[in-house]
Amino acid sequence: MVVKSELKLIKSLQQKKCRNEHGLFVIEGKKAVEELLNFGVKVYGVYVSNVNLDVLHTKTINVSQKELQQMSALKNPNGVLGVFYTLAPVSVNFNDWILVLDGVQDPGNLGTIIRLCDWFGIKNIVCSNETVDCYNPKVLQATMGSIARINITYTDLELFLGATSLPIFGSFMNGTSVYTNQMPKSGILVMGNEGKGISAEVKNLCSHQISIPQYGKETTESLNVGTATAILLNELRRI
Amino acid sequence: MVVKSELKLIKSLQQKKCRNEHGLFVIEGKKAVEELLNFGVKVYGVYVSNVNLDVLHTKTINVSQKELQQMSALKNPNGVLGVFYTLAPVSVNFNDWILVLDGVQDPGNLGTIIRLCDWFGIKNIVCSNETVDCYNPKVLQATMGSIARINITYTDLELFLGATSLPIFGSFMNGTSVYTNQMPKSGILVMGNEGKGISAEVKNLCSHQISIPQYGKETTESLNVGTATAILLNELRRI
Repeated sequence: MVVKSELKLIKSLQQKKCRNEHGLFVIEGKKAVEELLNFGVKVYGVYVSNVNLDVLHTKTINVSQKELQQMSALKNPNGVLGVFYTLAPVSVNFNDWILVLDGVQDPGNLGTIIRLCDWFGIKNIVCSNETVDCYNPKVLQATMGSIARINITYTDLELFLGATSLPIFGSFMNGTSVYTNQMPKSGILVMGNEGKGISAEVKNLCSHQISIPQYGKETTESLNVGTATAILLNELRRI
Repeated sequence: MVVKSELKLIKSLQQKKCRNEHGLFVIEGKKAVEELLNFGVKVYGVYVSNVNLDVLHTKTINVSQKELQQMSALKNPNGVLGVFYTLAPVSVNFNDWILVLDGVQDPGNLGTIIRLCDWFGIKNIVCSNETVDCYNPKVLQATMGSIARINITYTDLELFLGATSLPIFGSFMNGTSVYTNQMPKSGILVMGNEGKGISAEVKNLCSHQISIPQYGKETTESLNVGTATAILLNELRRI
């Protein structure tokens, strides 16, 4: 049984403003919630309806399917909903690669990119303030538990990139081939907005402009920012 | 003005059964429709509401927003809806790489994969009969116009793979690193279902089992089939 005010609070966390105000976010699904519990992310409450969790927590509460429906962002809630405290960004490590996102807007794309960083051991993502919020429910649906393993910071990119001495590789349609670029051991990779790419201000700060070559005859096709990030992170990490 | 029976027919094309019966499919959006017109895909009708197309076709019909809503699969139709005849698969070219999909279920993933094939010049995709239909509206939304440039065949994979003399590279969680495999100029790459991977029957037919190495400490993370395909096609095509 959950009181009305709590249901209302949890539902409100679908909005960025309310997430910021309360310092809380919602993640749904058994696997994702258990990953966050295992990782030790601070828990506000875990709400479960007819599902047995493998990870026990004192703040687990059994609720009815109707109650779950009232707090969930999903049309068909899947039985487990966790409310966690947002993770405080820590200092960025400049001895490895850092991924910078300049205005990525689509929550699915950001979710995909966070999972990719987890796979390729990229510990730090720095986002422009215009990039979609990483606690957006659709981002979290696409990240699974990866959100807890990646340090995500939102900041003014001009300030951040202006202050670094690392090489800055921007991903552009007409840069030099990533295959011919000798990639260093550490640096910054910048990916741009889905429609507009990297902004003019950030472009000016890029020391290198790189591209993934299209194979064969040129078509009108372009790569989605998620798949382009997959390929470029693989290029950074391949031996 | 569109008669009721035509509205009903177009709406029905959201179902695979009806697409098969009529040999027609629907694609929405100015860019995608124009690409298919430019490519010369046979047109049943192009329905436009308050949008000027740059590509003219005698079968373009102005309709009201209400009529468009009645035929569209989108909540908010975007002004252009094309109905085209499905493309007849042609013979597969065995002198290049062929992508085989063993039960990919998510329409967004198939759409992403078709776009990737277009980018990397992979002309042939061979799908198991269990793979999601390439004319599914959500697939087409994700492919943009790429659908017209790729030859997509649905067939029994055991028969197809059993008959080929090409090397067959299956993508697995625990295969040998794709970085250390010397990839030939032609071959078959097999990608599996989102949850279950490649089926046991198809696995038996793979001559090589490959993987994308995870960087650093192993996490519970896995790669989505779309991003894994991006990375593997890049590996096939990089110089």
